[in-house]
Amino acid sequence: MDRYVVERVKTGIPGFDDLLGGGFPRGTTVLVTGPTGTGKTTFAVQFVYKGAELYGEPGVIVTLEERAQDLRREMLSFGWDLRKYEEEGKIAIIDGVSSVVGLPSEEKFALEDGLNVEGFLRYVYRVVKNINAKRLVVDSIPSIAIRLREEKDIREVLLRLNTILLEMGVTSVLTTEAEDPKRGRISKYGVEEYVSRGVVLLDLVEKDVELKRYLLVRKMRETRHSMKKYPFEITEDGIVVYPSGEIY
Amino acid sequence: MDRYVVERVKTGIPGFDDLLGGGFPRGTTVLVTGPTGTGKTTFAVQFVYKGAELYGEPGVIVTLEERAQDLRREMLSFGWDLRKYEEEGKIAIIDGVSSVVGLPSEEKFALEDGLNVEGFLRYVYRVVKNINAKRLVVDSIPSIAIRLREEKDIREVLLRLNTILLEMGVTSVLTTEAEDPKRGRISKYGVEEYVSRGVVLLDLVEKDVELKRYLLVRKMRETRHSMKKYPFEITEDGIVVYPSGEIY
Amino acid sequence: MDRYVVERVKTGIPGFDDLLGGGFPRGTTVLVTGPTGTGKTTFAVQFVYKGAELYGEPGVIVTLEERAQDLRREMLSFGWDLRKYEEEGKIAIIDGVSSVVGLPSEEKFALEDGLNVEGFLRYVYRVVKNINAKRLVVDSIPSIAIRLREEKDIREVLLRLNTILLEMGVTSVLTTEAEDPKRGRISKYGVEEYVSRGVVLLDLVEKDVELKRYLLVRKMRETRHSMKKYPFEITEDGIVVYPSGEIY
Amino acid sequence: MDRYVVERVKTGIPGFDDLLGGGFPRGTTVLVTGPTGTGKTTFAVQFVYKGAELYGEPGVIVTLEERAQDLRREMLSFGWDLRKYEEEGKIAIIDGVSSVVGLPSEEKFALEDGLNVEGFLRYVYRVVKNINAKRLVVDSIPSIAIRLREEKDIREVLLRLNTILLEMGVTSVLTTEAEDPKRGRISKYGVEEYVSRGVVLLDLVEKDVELKRYLLVRKMRETRHSMKKYPFEITEDGIVVYPSGEIY
Amino acid sequence: MDRYVVERVKTGIPGFDDLLGGGFPRGTTVLVTGPTGTGKTTFAVQFVYKGAELYGEPGVIVTLEERAQDLRREMLSFGWDLRKYEEEGKIAIIDGVSSVVGLPSEEKFALEDGLNVEGFLRYVYRVVKNINAKRLVVDSIPSIAIRLREEKDIREVLLRLNTILLEMGVTSVLTTEAEDPKRGRISKYGVEEYVSRGVVLLDLVEKDVELKRYLLVRKMRETRHSMKKYPFEITEDGIVVYPSGEIY
Amino acid sequence: MDRYVVERVKTGIPGFDDLLGGGFPRGTTVLVTGPTGTGKTTFAVQFVYKGAELYGEPGVIVTLEERAQDLRREMLSFGWDLRKYEEEGKIAIIDGVSSVVGLPSEEKFALEDGLNVEGFLRYVYRVVKNINAKRLVVDSIPSIAIRLREEKDIREVLLRLNTILLEMGVTSVLTTEAEDPKRGRISKYGVEEYVSRGVVLLDLVEKDVELKRYLLVRKMRETRHSMKKYPFEITEDGIVVYPSGEIY
Repeated sequence: MDRYVVERVKTGIPGFDDLLGGGFPRGTTVLVTGPTGTGKTTFAVQFVYKGAELYGEPGVIVTLEERAQDLRREMLSFGWDLRKYEEEGKIAIIDGVSSVVGLPSEEKFALEDGLNVEGFLRYVYRVVKNINAKRLVVDSIPSIAIRLREEKDIREVLLRLNTILLEMGVTSVLTTEAEDPKRGRISKYGVEEYVSRGVVLLDLVEKDVELKRYLLVRKMRETRHSMKKYPFEITEDGIVVYPSGEIY
Repeated sequence: MDRYVVERVKTGIPGFDDLLGGGFPRGTTVLVTGPTGTGKTTFAVQFVYKGAELYGEPGVIVTLEERAQDLRREMLSFGWDLRKYEEEGKIAIIDGVSSVVGLPSEEKFALEDGLNVEGFLRYVYRVVKNINAKRLVVDSIPSIAIRLREEKDIREVLLRLNTILLEMGVTSVLTTEAEDPKRGRISKYGVEEYVSRGVVLLDLVEKDVELKRYLLVRKMRETRHSMKKYPFEITEDGIVVYPSGEIY
Repeated sequence: MDRYVVERVKTGIPGFDDLLGGGFPRGTTVLVTGPTGTGKTTFAVQFVYKGAELYGEPGVIVTLEERAQDLRREMLSFGWDLRKYEEEGKIAIIDGVSSVVGLPSEEKFALEDGLNVEGFLRYVYRVVKNINAKRLVVDSIPSIAIRLREEKDIREVLLRLNTILLEMGVTSVLTTEAEDPKRGRISKYGVEEYVSRGVVLLDLVEKDVELKRYLLVRKMRETRHSMKKYPFEITEDGIVVYPSGEIY
Repeated sequence: MDRYVVERVKTGIPGFDDLLGGGFPRGTTVLVTGPTGTGKTTFAVQFVYKGAELYGEPGVIVTLEERAQDLRREMLSFGWDLRKYEEEGKIAIIDGVSSVVGLPSEEKFALEDGLNVEGFLRYVYRVVKNINAKRLVVDSIPSIAIRLREEKDIREVLLRLNTILLEMGVTSVLTTEAEDPKRGRISKYGVEEYVSRGVVLLDLVEKDVELKRYLLVRKMRETRHSMKKYPFEITEDGIVVYPSGEIY
Repeated sequence: MDRYVVERVKTGIPGFDDLLGGGFPRGTTVLVTGPTGTGKTTFAVQFVYKGAELYGEPGVIVTLEERAQDLRREMLSFGWDLRKYEEEGKIAIIDGVSSVVGLPSEEKFALEDGLNVEGFLRYVYRVVKNINAKRLVVDSIPSIAIRLREEKDIREVLLRLNTILLEMGVTSVLTTEAEDPKRGRISKYGVEEYVSRGVVLLDLVEKDVELKRYLLVRKMRETRHSMKKYPFEITEDGIVVYPSGEIY
Repeated sequence: MDRYVVERVKTGIPGFDDLLGGGFPRGTTVLVTGPTGTGKTTFAVQFVYKGAELYGEPGVIVTLEERAQDLRREMLSFGWDLRKYEEEGKIAIIDGVSSVVGLPSEEKFALEDGLNVEGFLRYVYRVVKNINAKRLVVDSIPSIAIRLREEKDIREVLLRLNTILLEMGVTSVLTTEAEDPKRGRISKYGVEEYVSRGVVLLDLVEKDVELKRYLLVRKMRETRHSMKKYPFEITEDGIVVYPSGEIY
């Protein structure tokens, strides 16, 4: 039998695919985790935006921590015009905030309030099919958990989410939070990393009273990945990883 | 397409705007966090006071930990005469303490006791409109949380607060508490930083049995900010940041 | 406008007022915190005793951890004769222990058992007015909290206590407990420092198998205070701070 | 009496049997633990796959964190064709995921939803007998615990599981999770290691901003095992341990 | 007024009284705390035994962790014949264990099962009066707490106990437990030290793979005590403190 | 009066009795604690086996974590034939596992399911009397605690167990678990060490990426024991302690 070759999805993040043998495995679900201010949302949106811009792959963004309009405005500072691809049907943003905060949503895609996990998954599934998406972002897992209000089932919810995403065939990026990864805790609930097939950590290290950003691939199934900490920056064009740089 | 340019709000804190490319992004909500005695309240009031004094922008201060009259007196020690701008309609202070402690409030603006999150937001909204405020301070988040008495919903409350503030168009500073930021925990509830678009940490570092103050911008959306720790002082004119200083 | 000048209350603790620009701001409430055996009770009583002895200011001591008679006896070892000033109407001690432990109190001022926060505040208010007190000590906050038996409201209780004390115009010292201040936790409940306008930490540092006492002003509103750790001793005349000493 | 000689089961992991005097004791239950991304699932599957391929021993894999089809695909990247041995009746995979996530299973062996510990054990027992299995993998213990939803009985469940497995005579590998083994906590619930007869830790150590993998046998009954940390790699042929290598 | 002189109670522990200016203050209650195996029970019994033997002061021992007969036997290894002084009416041992474990007590003084705090205090009071005791030992506080089964009131129980003991006029030693005093937690419940007037810590420090015993007076009201760590040993004659020794 | 001489029970562990002045005090109860894989069960069984083999003292083993048959098989790897002494009536093993896991026990002595603490103690008492045992092992305390399902009473259960064992006159070894003894927590529940009269810690220390075993006597009533950490090994003849060895 010939050795099985895994299809790779280019991430659109300069320098990053080199660490993964070409990109994420097609169809996999990757957790992006780290403390606040490390660029998780930027990473996730870049994955979908560059998918549309550079590789012609439609993508869906589920935004649960800020409204679609706020996200669009912010991304303009990187020169990313999400609206343009939305109009072309290449990107869809699902507004998961307006209903929660009691404001009417002017978005095409918006989650109702009071949804359960099935309702959530069904809606996402429908939008993915609607634009024939190949990429998906959910920002963030803790916001789903809060919505469902039953933390002790978070593992089951994630298991279900992961499996459905695999079933859809999309390559997905989910974000979560890690207060202090250096002390071993690399996710909010301590379970996200175990039910995910890939884990990318964005973190900070202090050097001469300055915090330096670094990225570490902690886990990536079907991939012989590097286990080194690589420096990255948030430039005016988005995230750039330096595979030959040093963080110290 | 031309690159989108973010409008900046000058903070009125000498030296600080240089770290942010000119100031906070207009309309954003910034979390100011740190241990006790680091100057969070001073930072927040300075933002509103200097807005009125130097930039002609009206501002609202919601004070939940001390009465308006006590705040006014304290700020006099910096030479800041809040009363003067209140009389000119450029500053409004909402007294959130008197009703809780069972004292009658002699303030023009005061929160009733027993308010829920909607009532709180509605009242703030009304005062913001009343003086056409461009700046807002809420001091502090834990005091809101206590008032609402349901800690586990703090994330949702903050999400709602953030969104309403964005909707109002004001640039806001919210304060919270962090016992020991060096160990990764930079907020009281561990969620404030994730739902905020900007996070400024005021902290202390020990050098030769003396505690030195420093400031760190941990996160600022739409902004290529420095990640360095800068020394600052609480002078008799308020907070001054030293962008070229060293904390060690 | 002339710069506002804060009136200072001399503490009666040799060396200490120098760190504060002359003393506590008149009318403020100061938290004195630290591990066991650091001298918090001595500090608090010295503040009231010296107020009466040196500055002619009447003072009230609310003792919740030992009976008035035990406190009096202990203070005799510093040569402080509380009884004398009590008879002159310059000091009043409120016995908050006897009723709790089921013993009859022979004190002039004693708290009943089963009191709530309003009852507590009302009684203290009455005694303050009775002797026209300018200074007040409550030793300690955790004992109030235990009495009220609803820890989750401790923040509100403290907010109310602080405000009432400001309203009374007395300058107050409240004591609380901090197991291990070096690790960031500087109070029993983690909230006392945030609702107080001043925080003084009494702590220990080990040097050559000996524990050395030091004092640190962590916070003092309306005051440009030092942030250095100063050595202090408990001498046979009470606490003495050494503003030019070194703890290492 | 002659000294009793323990029969050894070769693990199929190059270099590893040397640390154990030839392999696991026949019939024992071994816990494989460690943080995310250390190769626990690969270790476990390799044990069963190589058992079938190299030693002619049938094996059962209970997969509770990903579907059988996802596991098969992943293992192809190591050149391991599970399907082939399944068709030969040498490997059986029990799908424990589909029913939980509400998808129909197309697998020959699949757990029903809502099973209790007896049901779980009975089903596993039946499949073991069906293919006359000598090896068994359960990936992972936390997923069993979640399914049974009564964490406080996890010790009893594990005791029962261990005993039944001993009774079946299979040599078993169970996986669990350890956030930060360096701080003493080497399992998810803190009890797995005590009821297991063998414990193998897969962990990471940082050296020059790179995480290095190492393996440590923490416990192995009936075995005079090494207590050293050995480097290992996840190569394109699976896990390889280097008994003469150095991790630093 | 002449300086008040505190009467001292000699502890009977060689070398120790030197650290305290002659002994414990008469009538005070001292907490003896530390990890297991540091000699707390020996310290406490030595205080009572030597009181009877050397200073003619009768004493009561309340033993809540082992039966009177077991305590007696153990103390014989120091050459202390408790029985002899019991027969002379100089020492009384209250057996607090037999009733709890369901065995009949053959002791003259024994606590009934199911006692509440009042019953406990009343019984102790009665025995103290019976032999006209000047010294009292309670070994240990956690055992009282367990008996009363309401941990959240432990502070109040201790406050009551302390006050009653002061009222009785006896000088008392209470033992409690501290897992790891180096990290700031010096008692089981974190409150014992605050309601006690004296705190003596018995602890261990590692030097060259050997644990060395040391003693530290953390607090002693009415006493200018040393804050140094002194070595001590448990010799065949009981505890001996070395005021001029070094622990490192 | 002549100095009381404590009778010593030889442990049968080479090198160990030297640290204790000849052995455990006759009739005492000793806690053996430590992390997983340190040899606690081996230590405990060796104590009973060697008692029968070398000193002619009958012994009882209560096995609560593995079945009697599994224990017997394991111990054969040290050349210890428990069965032989069982047949001679010198050793009795009480199977505490079979009933819990729902398997019929073929053992002569087996605990019923659903037993309470009285039932447990009564059964053990009966077997001890049956073979006139002088030594007893209970492996382990956490398994008793789980069986009784009321963790908050664990202290009382242990107190009762200890007292009954003293009453029986047997010398006992009880095992418990300690995740990370270096950080001060040397038992599972934090209470076992306080109600035991002796505590032996088996732990690991890392030296050059290898874990080294060491033993420390933390407490032993009636015994002037060493407080040094001694290396030990699990050889093919069982545990051997090296009183003159170094662990570093």
